[in-house]
Amino acid sequence: MAIGLGPLPEMLPVNGFRLGTASAGVKTPGRQDLVVMELAAGCRVAAVFTRNRFCAAPVLLAREHLQEQAPRYLLVNTGNANAGTGERGLRDARACCEALAERAGVDAGQVLPFSTGVIGEPLPVDRIRAGLPAALAALSERGWAEAAAGILTTDTVPKGASVRLQLDGGPVTITGIAKGAGMIRPDMATMLAFIATDAALPQGLLDQALRDAVRYSFNRITVDGDTSTNDACVLVATGAAGVNLSEEGSPGYRHFVAALADVCRTLAQAIIRDGEGVTRFITVAIEGGATESECEAVAYTIAHSPLVKTAAFAGDPNWGRILAAIGRAGLDDLDVNGVRIWLDDYLIAEQGGRAEYYQESEAAARMAREEITIRVDLARGGAEATVWTTDFSYDYVRINAEYRS
Amino acid sequence: MAIGLGPLPEMLPVNGFRLGTASAGVKTPGRQDLVVMELAAGCRVAAVFTRNRFCAAPVLLAREHLQEQAPRYLLVNTGNANAGTGERGLRDARACCEALAERAGVDAGQVLPFSTGVIGEPLPVDRIRAGLPAALAALSERGWAEAAAGILTTDTVPKGASVRLQLDGGPVTITGIAKGAGMIRPDMATMLAFIATDAALPQGLLDQALRDAVRYSFNRITVDGDTSTNDACVLVATGAAGVNLSEEGSPGYRHFVAALADVCRTLAQAIIRDGEGVTRFITVAIEGGATESECEAVAYTIAHSPLVKTAAFAGDPNWGRILAAIGRAGLDDLDVNGVRIWLDDYLIAEQGGRAEYYQESEAAARMAREEITIRVDLARGGAEATVWTTDFSYDYVRINAEYRS
Repeated sequence: MAIGLGPLPEMLPVNGFRLGTASAGVKTPGRQDLVVMELAAGCRVAAVFTRNRFCAAPVLLAREHLQEQAPRYLLVNTGNANAGTGERGLRDARACCEALAERAGVDAGQVLPFSTGVIGEPLPVDRIRAGLPAALAALSERGWAEAAAGILTTDTVPKGASVRLQLDGGPVTITGIAKGAGMIRPDMATMLAFIATDAALPQGLLDQALRDAVRYSFNRITVDGDTSTNDACVLVATGAAGVNLSEEGSPGYRHFVAALADVCRTLAQAIIRDGEGVTRFITVAIEGGATESECEAVAYTIAHSPLVKTAAFAGDPNWGRILAAIGRAGLDDLDVNGVRIWLDDYLIAEQGGRAEYYQESEAAARMAREEITIRVDLARGGAEATVWTTDFSYDYVRINAEYRS
Repeated sequence: MAIGLGPLPEMLPVNGFRLGTASAGVKTPGRQDLVVMELAAGCRVAAVFTRNRFCAAPVLLAREHLQEQAPRYLLVNTGNANAGTGERGLRDARACCEALAERAGVDAGQVLPFSTGVIGEPLPVDRIRAGLPAALAALSERGWAEAAAGILTTDTVPKGASVRLQLDGGPVTITGIAKGAGMIRPDMATMLAFIATDAALPQGLLDQALRDAVRYSFNRITVDGDTSTNDACVLVATGAAGVNLSEEGSPGYRHFVAALADVCRTLAQAIIRDGEGVTRFITVAIEGGATESECEAVAYTIAHSPLVKTAAFAGDPNWGRILAAIGRAGLDDLDVNGVRIWLDDYLIAEQGGRAEYYQESEAAARMAREEITIRVDLARGGAEATVWTTDFSYDYVRINAEYRS
């Protein structure tokens, strides 16, 4: 059950960027599981990848291809991550790129591969190869919704965001899709996200815009603390709108970056709202820290605590568990008497214990909501950090205990 | 369901150390929940406590009393942790010590208080005070089994260990009890452990013996990564056996320290074997590391991974999740192709992928056992580290979602 996620918004097409989705039977026969994205000549591409040391073959190859040539195609399959597959995995990923390149009349180095799904199974290259004609035939600038569905694994709903900005040079569109839903935490998790814009940016600014947007969106979400071998987030700028954003300080660039950050945050939060077994969408907001990094440490310690997460599942305002998590977050000189904790706007703990006017019924009413904010004031500085996470439910266990069977 | 835990072994009495257990109705009427331990005059005491910044009132007070006088009594209640209780918690803990001191004719500073149970509720001092006469009346050197039961919270079985050594100076006994069972991880978790010996050790050696024993036992277990506000481990040396272990390098001292480490490891493993919702007892053994601390980092990353733990629950040899956990353990220069992973003695992964002769049925048979060893060779040095952990089951969620209701 996804929390607060409606149907996809209107997915505005991005001139110069086409998507085609098909069924290749990678894991489940009949399932739409193969997505090809076509970039018009002259597009610029920025990408960030997982920092897991065991990164998957497609990640290794996509990184390599990005360094060599301007990409013309993105090739995405779900159902199989092509991770933990050693040398064979690299050969398989390369074979898929070659098959697409041959049909499309480009170099194999102009294809970036992406895979998500089960780890450690050989990629069924023949099935992917056989699915390519249908995916290519389906290419359309209006193919976003099908692609959003075609990249999912254990997600229950497709995730997308789309905005149109009015800049000085004219209108600019940003449209993106993403998938989760387990093995999520900072450093890019098991997540895939593809975002396109028709604005034109020089490579350096495009890279920087993506890094900044990812930092406070995809890198601030966690389901279970497990990072994945396959995470990737790609931003394509087609330039087709004829709007040039080449000055870092310009109002246009700043407007664009803010909108891109919004799109990324919407997609990142959608991943959490549809996290495995989720019954609550939890915002952990830390303020009053000495540094941003210590705020992050506290936020993630709370967000990863199985005891906090099971209490949230139960709708139990068990502030003692929040307090214990703060206490083990590594802030050795923390003055525990200064710390205050709120559920939404309701003060529940202060001076090392329960807040003076605390009422269990008031706290329980807030913890029972589908969307909860745990706010903590560390009272030792002006830094802050916010992360988004899920609760821990029976369904989380069920989904991850049954995933391979 | 505790894994591989039989009834308590024969709990050998320790001359000079008596235990009395009674029912005070701290949380559940009729439950044996109050334990008094009496130390003969002249005992030496070593103790280690939680490093959580939000440590409970009894921890603060026990630390304070230890610095001032030689303890004569340990006072333990279950059902209420007296944590997150601010100034009132300190007053309450002090009042309990005073009540026992008055009845026993010692100073309040000679009583060390210990509490475990729910966080954030006021300690029912009156009920504890009213329970003291029965606990004192029950004092006996044969009171170990009742005390082992009297300190439990969500544990399902009492935990104890007891050995007798033949040293040059004569026989020496070490007997101990412990409780878990959630909020367990290194740095002393929600754990209480009380160990007594009739050997005589100077204070420095006693402290050192306990620190060393704890390091590779209680500090190497984890259920859920959550440390507690109340953890404590106490070692009492009565000296009643007339065996003096005053030389660090002597065979007798080394024999004693090895036996103490065995007792601590048995108790620590018993906590994991009875961890909340446990269905498997998992040993995570890392070898071939450059340093012990990096081996610990890898071991804990695997042991805390919800994806590894749910796979273990399912009996699913999902080595891809183990591999992904190793990959995010912070070893930036790890050569992933050198890493090998075994389930028990069965090689499941090497060279970045599935082992050459891997057979799913062979791996699944091992993962389906109640006791599993996940062994990892990092192939970059001679260091090693072993931790013990549980799987993640529906019951873990149920227990922690329902604990307060």
